Parts: sequence; C-alpha cells; structure tokens
Amino acid sequence: MPRTIIGVMGPGEGASQEDREVARELGKLIAKKGWVLLTGGRAHGVMHAALEGAKLAGGLTLGILPAAHRDDISSAVDVPVLTGMGEARNVVNVLTSDVVLVCGMSAGTASEVALAIKTHRPVVLVGATDTSVRFFESFGRPFGRARDAADAIRLVEDLLSRKE
Amino acid sequence: MPRTIIGVMGPGEGASQEDREVARELGKLIAKKGWVLLTGGRAHGVMHAALEGAKLAGGLTLGILPAAHRDDISSAVDVPVLTGMGEARNVVNVLTSDVVLVCGMSAGTASEVALAIKTHRPVVLVGATDTSVRFFESFGRPFGRARDAADAIRLVEDLLSRKE
Amino acid sequence: MPRTIIGVMGPGEGASQEDREVARELGKLIAKKGWVLLTGGRAHGVMHAALEGAKLAGGLTLGILPAAHRDDISSAVDVPVLTGMGEARNVVNVLTSDVVLVCGMSAGTASEVALAIKTHRPVVLVGATDTSVRFFESFGRPFGRARDAADAIRLVEDLLSRKE
Amino acid sequence: MPRTIIGVMGPGEGASQEDREVARELGKLIAKKGWVLLTGGRAHGVMHAALEGAKLAGGLTLGILPAAHRDDISSAVDVPVLTGMGEARNVVNVLTSDVVLVCGMSAGTASEVALAIKTHRPVVLVGATDTSVRFFESFGRPFGRARDAADAIRLVEDLLSRKE
Repeated sequence: MPRTIIGVMGPGEGASQEDREVARELGKLIAKKGWVLLTGGRAHGVMHAALEGAKLAGGLTLGILPAAHRDDISSAVDVPVLTGMGEARNVVNVLTSDVVLVCGMSAGTASEVALAIKTHRPVVLVGATDTSVRFFESFGRPFGRARDAADAIRLVEDLLSRKE
Repeated sequence: MPRTIIGVMGPGEGASQEDREVARELGKLIAKKGWVLLTGGRAHGVMHAALEGAKLAGGLTLGILPAAHRDDISSAVDVPVLTGMGEARNVVNVLTSDVVLVCGMSAGTASEVALAIKTHRPVVLVGATDTSVRFFESFGRPFGRARDAADAIRLVEDLLSRKE
Repeated sequence: MPRTIIGVMGPGEGASQEDREVARELGKLIAKKGWVLLTGGRAHGVMHAALEGAKLAGGLTLGILPAAHRDDISSAVDVPVLTGMGEARNVVNVLTSDVVLVCGMSAGTASEVALAIKTHRPVVLVGATDTSVRFFESFGRPFGRARDAADAIRLVEDLLSRKE
Repeated sequence: MPRTIIGVMGPGEGASQEDREVARELGKLIAKKGWVLLTGGRAHGVMHAALEGAKLAGGLTLGILPAAHRDDISSAVDVPVLTGMGEARNVVNVLTSDVVLVCGMSAGTASEVALAIKTHRPVVLVGATDTSVRFFESFGRPFGRARDAADAIRLVEDLLSRKE
C-alpha cells in the first residue's frame, strides 16, 4: 500500500542555522513515525538537514530534483526523482506530500506554500514570522502553525487521522 | 524577431471588480504599446479581463492553459498554449514574460510572484496591499509597485529599456 | 477567438537538406492559410526552416522552447514560450497543435509522434520511411501520410473540416 | 547514498498476458538485486505486474503518476509521486531511471523509449518485435535487446558496472 509521505520545504542556500536545526529534527521525527520524508533533494539548507535527520533515524527519503542529472543531490536522499523541469518540480513536491511542513521562508518556499494552498494540500508553518502568517491568511484557507518540530508532528498526526 | 511579452497575473474566479477593471486597462495599454499580452488564458477574472482589454485595442494575446483540451479558454485568447500540466503552467507563465504585472492576489497568483522573484523575472505589483508588499520584500529582491495601470506601464517601459 | 495552430515537428541539428526544404514549404503554406505555425522554436533544422518559411509568407509563429532563457531561439519566432522543462515541452508542442505535421525523424520527433497518437492529436507524416510508418501503424490508431508539403496541407484542411 | 533505480515501461490497459508475465518476473529480479523499481504507477498492465513482482520479492517500489490525486494507483506502489502533469511524467520516468527496461509496446511506451534515447538513458528492449527494433535502430544510438527477464537483468548489471 502507498506509504504516507511528509514534505519538508524551506530555503536552500539561504537557510538559517535555526531553520536547519528544526528541519533536522523534523526529519528525525518523520522517520521515527515510519513516514517517508520528501524534500527538494538538493545538498543545501532545509532540504539537506531534514534528509540527514531522517537518515539518522533510519527513515526512507525521497528527493524531487529540478535537474535532469544526478548532480547536486544530497547524499541523504535514498530515492532521487529527476524531473529536469526546474522550478516546476515544486508542484510535484506539493502534490506528492500528504502534509507539507514549512521551515523558514524563501521565494521558492513561498511558491510551494502558495501551490499547496491552491491545490488543497494541508500545510503547517513551523516557527513562521508574523509577516508570512498574515500573508497566507489573506487567502482565506486554513493552515496549521507550529512552535517547534514536536508540535508540528502532533499537527501532522491530527491531519492524517482526519483524512482516514 | 521574438516580440516583447508582458504577463498579467491575478485571481481567476475570485477576482474583485476593481482587479478586473485594472486588468482590462493593463491589457489595453499593453496592446497599444505593441507588446504581446500573456495570461493564464482561462475565461475568468483578471486573465479574462486583461485579454478582453488587449483585444479591444487590437493586440495579440497568448494564453498558457493548465488543461490538455480547449475547454475553459477565454474567447479573447488568440494563441492558446495547452500544457496539460495543471499548476506547473504557472512556471511557464513567469518564464515567458519579459515583465510580470500582478493585479490582485490569490494563492495561484502568489505562486507566480514567488516564482518570478526566484527566477529573476522583473515583477510589478499594481495596487498591492501592504501585507503582500511586506511579504515579498522579505526576500530581499527588488520589485516594482504601481498605483494604477498607466503607472505600471511606465514601469514596464523603464524595465524594458534597462534590458536592452 | 482562438486561432488554428499547426505544429511542424522534425529533427533539429540532424535534419537533412530535404527535410528542411519540405519544412520551409510547410511553413509558407501554413502561413498562407492564416494558421499559426508552432514548432520547438530552436534555431536548428526543421524547426528553424518551417519558421523561416512562415515568416517569408507573413505568418505568425509560435516557438515552445525547452530552456528557461531566451537562448538558442530561432530569429523567426514571433512568440517564444519558455518552458524551462527540457524534453517535457514536447508534450506541450503536441497538445497545443490542432494537427501535428512530421517532417523527418529523430528520437525527439518520435517522442512527439508517439505522444500525439497517445493524446489523440491528428498526425500527418510527410515523406516518412516505411520503417516509421510500419512502427506507428502498430498502435492501431489512424494517422495521415503525405508525399509532399502541398499534399500535407490538403490533409490538414480535411482534418480541420471534420473537427468543426 | 542514492539507490539504483530501474524503470520498467510498457503498455497499461492494452498489455498482453505475456508482457505482464515478463514484467512480473522483471519486478521480482529487480527487487532481489536490491534495486528500486520505478514504473508509471497505475493499476494496469506492465506497470502493475512489475510492481506486484517486486513486492512479492520484498522490494521497494516507486510510481510516477500522471494525476494530481491518489486515484488509480497500483496497490503495489510504496512511494507514489503525483506529478499532475499527464503525459509529461513520461519524461520523469525516463530521467529518473538508471536503466529503462521496456516490455511490450504502446504509443506511451514508444514516447518513453524515444525520450530515453534522446536523453542518453540506457535502454533494454525485452522481447521486442522486429518492427520496433528496426525503428529505434534508425536513430543510430545503441540500445540493448533481451530475450527474457533473466537476460535483461544480466544486461542491466553490465550497464551499471560500466557506469561506475
């Protein structure tokens, strides 16, 4: 049976130390729950940190990559999906995730949150700024907010239980 | 020689009366300048209004559609491009536009603004709320702001002259 | 109202002199009929020859490009659509064409013919080899065959009249 | 470290009994080798048979789906990737596979073989007809041919050893 897939989205090269720490913790907790971790798969920032966390906890990791070749893949990706579609792979990230967790914010991340809201995927912002929260609230669709990784995972469990 | 293409992005079904009026005016002015108008091509909201404005002024209109069939196309589209890729067509909208004009805000529109910032396409927000401006400013990349359609077109001319 | 769009597909860098001559003639005749010419938009082979033919006859030309930037675009493209999706743009070529005309054969072209058959777009092979004809016949779906450009255009007219 | 991913492509609804049997055997052998099996992920034909074979042998299975929702997924897919891009997902199938194994032929399958040749992915046709072989040979690029599943797996091992 298809497994539950949880996406972790956030800045690549520009991720803060704090974003990466939260991402690593999210990856660990996702793996411990037995869920598959999805990220954008590159060897940078939130993607890479979440993937490393999941591997430390023995999880299965999926990376949806913008490139057509196995360049710039995080070594913590088990299953690299090469789209060759650049930023259009952000749509695949979102559609494939049962829940989208967001850790930090960048232009690429913002496109993923917006696409998740548009395509009705459940979104949880972890440690988001007021500016981000106010912006995404303006679309009138519900999304979750979490203080930290553990709080985010509780919200994911709640969202998944409502789907069944 | 490839013509200049100006994109107008904004809400579809949920567009306000005011958004549609600004969009129609943008379409007219884009056509009068001899630029090709690009929109998402559907028969709704900002897309449809901008396309109608451009056709009133005798312009050429391009619609980049999410569907694989000629359903739900605005009758004011001259050249419908059928992507069959759903929301991934938002990336094509942005990459194809020499300048992206934004009129109103929705989740789909937000994904386009974010993708334009990410892929370094010039963006002009027309009549944007403070919430939107503050959010997009947080990415640290420049974008334009215009009060109305005429103001937006002046900014486009300025942006195009710098490209040459 | 959306205009009729006729696609011309064929080899890029590896196109033969004969393929390019037929493509140029197809471009001219498509333009004379008032149809929009669609190609893959690059400055090579069948794409470039068909686009040049259409411009000589005063037609409107659409190029669906694999890249995210205005590099390697044929100067005979009026409206360049930048997909940034590499070979996935072949799907857009096919879906957007009311009829797909094929002139010469390469791996990329073969993918377009196969996708056109799969997505039920009318296909006409111009001057195809027996090997190609036999292969595509094996899918049990009808497609047209033309000896030369004039013959191909007659088939397109016939196919379009049946759609109305 | 990213795992080796072997794609099995072939007809969906129209697959023959023989194609499905070979596909099931390919899935089993791929799983026994410790490779990840990739298919188009739907609950039909060669995709479904290969996935079932891999699960019988305890393998990990990846399905790259055309839809944006978890409809029509084979129950033997562990990791469903939802592209929402229709036939454009065929490009992802091919790019993601270290080797593309082909079992039976349909228009969709032909597009995948052509795209694999175009993007320089190694291809092995299993039990192909002379018509198919002659057609794909016309592109002047090498591809493998196998009599049966065991023969195909030997060719995959050989191709993988040359990559290292």
